[in-house]
Amino acid sequence: MPKYRPRFHTPGTSPGTLTSHPDQPAGEAVLTLVRYDSETLDERPNATLEECLAAVQEQEAAQSSDGGGPRKGVVWLHVTGMPDADLAARLQNMLGLHPLALEDVLAGSQRPKVEQYEEHLFVVLSHADYTGLDLHLYQTSLFLKGSLVVSIDSCPSELLGPIRTRLRAGGRMRQRGADYLLYALIDLAVDHKFPVLERLGTQVEEMEASLLANPKPGSTIRIHRLKRHMMLLRRALWPEREVLSQMQRGDMEPAISRKTQVFLRDTYDHAVQAMDLLETYREVLGDLQNLLLTAASNRLNDIIRVLTVISIIFMPLTFIVGVYGMNFDREAGPWAMPELGWAYGYPAVMLAMLGIAVGMLWFFKRRGWI
Amino acid sequence: MPKYRPRFHTPGTSPGTLTSHPDQPAGEAVLTLVRYDSETLDERPNATLEECLAAVQEQEAAQSSDGGGPRKGVVWLHVTGMPDADLAARLQNMLGLHPLALEDVLAGSQRPKVEQYEEHLFVVLSHADYTGLDLHLYQTSLFLKGSLVVSIDSCPSELLGPIRTRLRAGGRMRQRGADYLLYALIDLAVDHKFPVLERLGTQVEEMEASLLANPKPGSTIRIHRLKRHMMLLRRALWPEREVLSQMQRGDMEPAISRKTQVFLRDTYDHAVQAMDLLETYREVLGDLQNLLLTAASNRLNDIIRVLTVISIIFMPLTFIVGVYGMNFDREAGPWAMPELGWAYGYPAVMLAMLGIAVGMLWFFKRRGWI
Amino acid sequence: MPKYRPRFHTPGTSPGTLTSHPDQPAGEAVLTLVRYDSETLDERPNATLEECLAAVQEQEAAQSSDGGGPRKGVVWLHVTGMPDADLAARLQNMLGLHPLALEDVLAGSQRPKVEQYEEHLFVVLSHADYTGLDLHLYQTSLFLKGSLVVSIDSCPSELLGPIRTRLRAGGRMRQRGADYLLYALIDLAVDHKFPVLERLGTQVEEMEASLLANPKPGSTIRIHRLKRHMMLLRRALWPEREVLSQMQRGDMEPAISRKTQVFLRDTYDHAVQAMDLLETYREVLGDLQNLLLTAASNRLNDIIRVLTVISIIFMPLTFIVGVYGMNFDREAGPWAMPELGWAYGYPAVMLAMLGIAVGMLWFFKRRGWI
Amino acid sequence: MPKYRPRFHTPGTSPGTLTSHPDQPAGEAVLTLVRYDSETLDERPNATLEECLAAVQEQEAAQSSDGGGPRKGVVWLHVTGMPDADLAARLQNMLGLHPLALEDVLAGSQRPKVEQYEEHLFVVLSHADYTGLDLHLYQTSLFLKGSLVVSIDSCPSELLGPIRTRLRAGGRMRQRGADYLLYALIDLAVDHKFPVLERLGTQVEEMEASLLANPKPGSTIRIHRLKRHMMLLRRALWPEREVLSQMQRGDMEPAISRKTQVFLRDTYDHAVQAMDLLETYREVLGDLQNLLLTAASNRLNDIIRVLTVISIIFMPLTFIVGVYGMNFDREAGPWAMPELGWAYGYPAVMLAMLGIAVGMLWFFKRRGWI
Amino acid sequence: MPKYRPRFHTPGTSPGTLTSHPDQPAGEAVLTLVRYDSETLDERPNATLEECLAAVQEQEAAQSSDGGGPRKGVVWLHVTGMPDADLAARLQNMLGLHPLALEDVLAGSQRPKVEQYEEHLFVVLSHADYTGLDLHLYQTSLFLKGSLVVSIDSCPSELLGPIRTRLRAGGRMRQRGADYLLYALIDLAVDHKFPVLERLGTQVEEMEASLLANPKPGSTIRIHRLKRHMMLLRRALWPEREVLSQMQRGDMEPAISRKTQVFLRDTYDHAVQAMDLLETYREVLGDLQNLLLTAASNRLNDIIRVLTVISIIFMPLTFIVGVYGMNFDREAGPWAMPELGWAYGYPAVMLAMLGIAVGMLWFFKRRGWI
Repeated sequence: MPKYRPRFHTPGTSPGTLTSHPDQPAGEAVLTLVRYDSETLDERPNATLEECLAAVQEQEAAQSSDGGGPRKGVVWLHVTGMPDADLAARLQNMLGLHPLALEDVLAGSQRPKVEQYEEHLFVVLSHADYTGLDLHLYQTSLFLKGSLVVSIDSCPSELLGPIRTRLRAGGRMRQRGADYLLYALIDLAVDHKFPVLERLGTQVEEMEASLLANPKPGSTIRIHRLKRHMMLLRRALWPEREVLSQMQRGDMEPAISRKTQVFLRDTYDHAVQAMDLLETYREVLGDLQNLLLTAASNRLNDIIRVLTVISIIFMPLTFIVGVYGMNFDREAGPWAMPELGWAYGYPAVMLAMLGIAVGMLWFFKRRGWI
Repeated sequence: MPKYRPRFHTPGTSPGTLTSHPDQPAGEAVLTLVRYDSETLDERPNATLEECLAAVQEQEAAQSSDGGGPRKGVVWLHVTGMPDADLAARLQNMLGLHPLALEDVLAGSQRPKVEQYEEHLFVVLSHADYTGLDLHLYQTSLFLKGSLVVSIDSCPSELLGPIRTRLRAGGRMRQRGADYLLYALIDLAVDHKFPVLERLGTQVEEMEASLLANPKPGSTIRIHRLKRHMMLLRRALWPEREVLSQMQRGDMEPAISRKTQVFLRDTYDHAVQAMDLLETYREVLGDLQNLLLTAASNRLNDIIRVLTVISIIFMPLTFIVGVYGMNFDREAGPWAMPELGWAYGYPAVMLAMLGIAVGMLWFFKRRGWI
Repeated sequence: MPKYRPRFHTPGTSPGTLTSHPDQPAGEAVLTLVRYDSETLDERPNATLEECLAAVQEQEAAQSSDGGGPRKGVVWLHVTGMPDADLAARLQNMLGLHPLALEDVLAGSQRPKVEQYEEHLFVVLSHADYTGLDLHLYQTSLFLKGSLVVSIDSCPSELLGPIRTRLRAGGRMRQRGADYLLYALIDLAVDHKFPVLERLGTQVEEMEASLLANPKPGSTIRIHRLKRHMMLLRRALWPEREVLSQMQRGDMEPAISRKTQVFLRDTYDHAVQAMDLLETYREVLGDLQNLLLTAASNRLNDIIRVLTVISIIFMPLTFIVGVYGMNFDREAGPWAMPELGWAYGYPAVMLAMLGIAVGMLWFFKRRGWI
Repeated sequence: MPKYRPRFHTPGTSPGTLTSHPDQPAGEAVLTLVRYDSETLDERPNATLEECLAAVQEQEAAQSSDGGGPRKGVVWLHVTGMPDADLAARLQNMLGLHPLALEDVLAGSQRPKVEQYEEHLFVVLSHADYTGLDLHLYQTSLFLKGSLVVSIDSCPSELLGPIRTRLRAGGRMRQRGADYLLYALIDLAVDHKFPVLERLGTQVEEMEASLLANPKPGSTIRIHRLKRHMMLLRRALWPEREVLSQMQRGDMEPAISRKTQVFLRDTYDHAVQAMDLLETYREVLGDLQNLLLTAASNRLNDIIRVLTVISIIFMPLTFIVGVYGMNFDREAGPWAMPELGWAYGYPAVMLAMLGIAVGMLWFFKRRGWI
Repeated sequence: MPKYRPRFHTPGTSPGTLTSHPDQPAGEAVLTLVRYDSETLDERPNATLEECLAAVQEQEAAQSSDGGGPRKGVVWLHVTGMPDADLAARLQNMLGLHPLALEDVLAGSQRPKVEQYEEHLFVVLSHADYTGLDLHLYQTSLFLKGSLVVSIDSCPSELLGPIRTRLRAGGRMRQRGADYLLYALIDLAVDHKFPVLERLGTQVEEMEASLLANPKPGSTIRIHRLKRHMMLLRRALWPEREVLSQMQRGDMEPAISRKTQVFLRDTYDHAVQAMDLLETYREVLGDLQNLLLTAASNRLNDIIRVLTVISIIFMPLTFIVGVYGMNFDREAGPWAMPELGWAYGYPAVMLAMLGIAVGMLWFFKRRGWI
């Protein structure tokens, strides 16, 4: 799977062209339709777009007959898996979603962003999945159009579950409008980063503990891998923080109510905290890399010091024994190695060598080499 | 204890869910109620929430009967230790604190922040505790709601003491309203960083002095530890400075009076100064790391130079004595090692070798190697 | 070809002086005139400026006779290759383009920018061409003046193609005005960076995979080359992002309609994504450089450790055999190397040496050196 | 003397508490009172606060009797040395200076800042004193209250002198109001950094010249010391620039006239220039550190290359002479070292060894090692 | 010549004191007066200030008699060389230039800036002169006061020439007012950096090409020198960009007309492009430094690998020949080195040693060391 390569249409393709990308094959997209208000909850697994359209129209009719009363029901269409070009085209035609937004949905792996189209709000977030070895970032696309929320999540793991549970349990979410559902989905996508961060944090902690105890060079590649994962996560988190900051601004207010913005501020806080943790991890890993480098340099120093000490001790000794291994003819004259004929020559040389070795060791000791 | 791992609810949990975190067990929260105005001071250790509620209502009644006169009394509820979910729920219901804020209280180790809820102001700060070996950051949560101040501090060490002493002594704090008490608590939390900084600074100074005198490699891990503590402290201080800057803005003014903002500016100055010091320490430590690296590299150079000098001196000498240790049969002809039979061959060789050694040393001297 | 050197007129030359630069020889500029509205499409290869001028005047007449009706036709003059000073002067005189803008066209390799002249809009973009070995950046200059679009592209590869195909196919572009054509050209120039990024990304991925498997030092220069290409691309992309951000501002609106700005936002997103990728590559390459450095340092440690172990084992052994190679006269007395006369002296020495070697190896093993 | 440690009150101390700090003992503060207008100049060394108060009141009376005429006289109280708590309290009570400001005066070593209190303006600047070995930063505190300027300078060296000389000489300063005196004092404090910068710059230049000629490792610690001084100076200069920028804003205008702000812009320029120089020095020193590191690494390479060349030449030679030192019994058979019995064996071996050595040298030469 | 040291008055000197600096001796300042309008051009070399004053007054009279007609003539006073204090004082008194501005002129080597005084505009720019070995930055000071432009350039090389040529040639400059002349001078000062950049760029390109081919350590100092020059140039360019950005703002408009601001935007573009190039050079040089470091480390590895291989091969061999050089008395018993008496002992040992050497080489080959 390509890790760093971009996904793109052939340059010059008309914008809004809805085609699947070869790297991002369209899986089997499963549609789930949920319709709820404070009193009723209607879930239809394996729904069709037609059912969805009918629900939206019904909802709008009910709301207008109300005479502008409080917004009541919410229609939520959730698509699990990657939609194909055909489904995207029908989403455009039947639900009125903007082709540029749907192009981004099909492309996958877009940068998180929020875009206000005339007809609807479009939010792209990332959905992180980390096994401890590999980090995958899936794209979560959210549309808010009146009382309709469309969520498209390409990750095979379940995003729908926790929200459905909360809807069934009733509570605040059932009282509130579609913008609160949008918030809940965003909150979920952001909070999904925390288990990932926990795993990363655990690995960083373990690595720090083990390296402070014994900095062994083999950790370099593991650090490199961890940094790589963090970089990917950071690339997703940074723009998500931006998205959340933008969604608290005043110009979002027709679509997103004041009350919901208070909750988005809470999610923003989570995103900031997640970024903060990532920065901490990065800093710790950077320091650990320095530690490894220093440790390697210290170890090298140690080894070379030992080599030097041994060499310096044995080199003179080997020279001396070499001297007395010379074959000068002792009978040539009195200056021809007379030591060899002395009765105590051998022990004297041995003692001298011992003295040299001890002196050397004392010298090294004083100099702090051993 | 986890150092870098985040604390979080299971993703998808409804916001404002009040549960204790497993990593942050609820200790025995002790409530202290203090009620004072310029004339009276009433302290009740081990108070109950009911007492607190009564005091607040009494206070409000007194104030409204005053006809909007100058704010008089302040009710201060201080919670030492970590509240449990039950206490949090009662704080929400009885005192009207916002569930999102209380969720942050229970979570612990939140990023410092200030949040304006409709009903009250919510401030999160950190409370640093440094033993010289380990740095712990506890969370201090502050609520300001009319004339009520609620402070929750999870640190076992005493935050209450200095304030109580000042209240008992009378003086300015007794004349002023609840916002001044809030300021005093914030000031205390920020100023608590100074003794920590002093200890860090002392260690940095000692390390610099010792490394400038003798850069020994073992200091790497100590520097790493110091940097770690500073990073944690910086992560707390940076957003605190933000909090203090936000609290001087005009939109805080109903809750925090102009007069108190002058004092907050003073606290802001302290936070800036603390950040400044931290940056200084970081820079000094970074430089010391460089110094260590350079020193290690210089020491390596020294050692290898000595090794090289010794090797270069003894290698030729050892070769020469090896030559005269060869066993060529001197009787085979006049070219077969006649030197061995010369009367002064041995001293000549010894002198030659001495000459070589002295020449080498002179050469190294000139080249600056020894 | 100069890579980093600037192109400039002699200082003090009057601004707007139209001369070709020696480094950027004027090639044979080929003019293509395309005129279209929603119903008709008229392409004239190898057109002349006179034809273009006539088309513009005809277009303006039609529009004014319309009485301010919806803008209909678009006149597009595309120049392939580098115009010479003469053509530039005629573009200035006949079409009313600003001399400062035309000076930038002739200079080539300008920084991407957008400039609003009184008479027209002027956009400079870059056009990247990457063979995998060398990255060339050509300049694309765009003018928008009423219903006339002039595009000048110095790159020999075809920019015109995809747009012409889309025009022939009809569709949205034929319905829209000149500003949409400008957008389409800008979009094309930006999207042309994606195939380049893909190639760079592939190289980065391959390099990372190969270095994680086996960090060999020869990769340094390849990394340097990749970084160089990225730097050049980044220098072009960064200001392009700026250009796209400026073009979405309100003060562009008479020239560029609201509707087209939505599409420019999409292109802006692409530019941001491209920058993001480049930053990722840079970070990965930086980390790989560190990895290489660490690997080199580790390899050095390994080699020196082996050298040290071997030296330390053989030095004492060589010394010992040297001792028993000394020629002391055994008849001089009982202390003169009596070992040499022992019946089991030789095997004892051999065993002792074996013991020393084994002991050394055991010591090194325990110390983790082998 | 503590270098990096903060000065602080015990956390929880009431703000505005005026006590001397143990690290900053109150010296003997000497008060000088200067009163001048365009015509008269009255200097009173060793003045008392009472005299000062009288002068201020007289001045105010004169000004109000004038009927709002042009500001005439200025009263300047200069305090040399560190005031004690008692003097501070009297400054607060008699002259109406704010306790928070006086607390900062007593603390010493505050970050430069400007603060607008209701009653007066308060400016903290630093006063640098550099002996070439040690950099001391003293605090200069300035108050501007109507026509009264109070300046407190803890540095033993004379700040008063140059201003007094200019006052005596008459000229512009005598014509202008108290704000111009404030400007003159600020200008002096900022300009006092230039001689310090000159000394630092001279040291940097010398170090660069000497290291480019001969990069010797011992300079590391000197560079570290220089960087330390620069860091301290930068910590003082950075906020001073801020102060000067703030003082040119419109909201300072009642206290500081338009005309004086033009002069403050000039001082701001000086501060910017000083920062600029410091940045330059930092960059140069950083580059020099790199240079040293590279030089050390190159020197190491040189030494090891020499060691390697020598080892590689002598190892084979020593091996060969070792071979002919073996004691095989030549009478055992024709294969037992017959060379030893050849008439020209010895010279042949010597020539072979010479050949080997020359060949090696030629090989190293070609490889560029020697 | 001092490179990094600041130039400054003694602290406490009255602002606007006009004295020459010792480091910047006043040369012989030569005045040239040029007066032109669309029809006439009058050049007076070696003019006096009196002539200049007369020309200005005449010009003003002509303009007022015109009744506010289009600005016609321009009076340009150009000073080549460094003015002395006396000339500065006369410029102040006769032409009404501000003393603070003239102080900056005399100081020399000011940071580029633009300042609006009440009476006139004051622009400081730098004038770069690069010989390939040394970079000198001279100060160009420009004054715009109504229809008078005063330019003072301390660089001995000719700034006046190109402008004079253009004035003589007639053209646009003669039609326009004094602000256009100011623009032309600024444009010239900025464009003068391009030849310098070209030389730097050429050196960077050459260095990159040579280092990629063969990274030799001697280049470190050359890189250091190049970086130094770039730093100086950047220090001048960065604020110049600021100046040009400020001059396009609306509040310059009475002095600088809209039409001229379009041209200044062009100059701003040049400054940005120059900065861009400098950043590119810096990045390339930084990468080259890394390359050198890596290359040095690789070369060290290579050398040490060779040393290790040779040592490991010869150490065992030398040991073996040492063994058979031992003098054990073969007659002492059957265990006393019986090998020495074997008929094929010598060739067996030689073969064994050959086998060891070959085996070692094969081992190193497999391990990738040779």
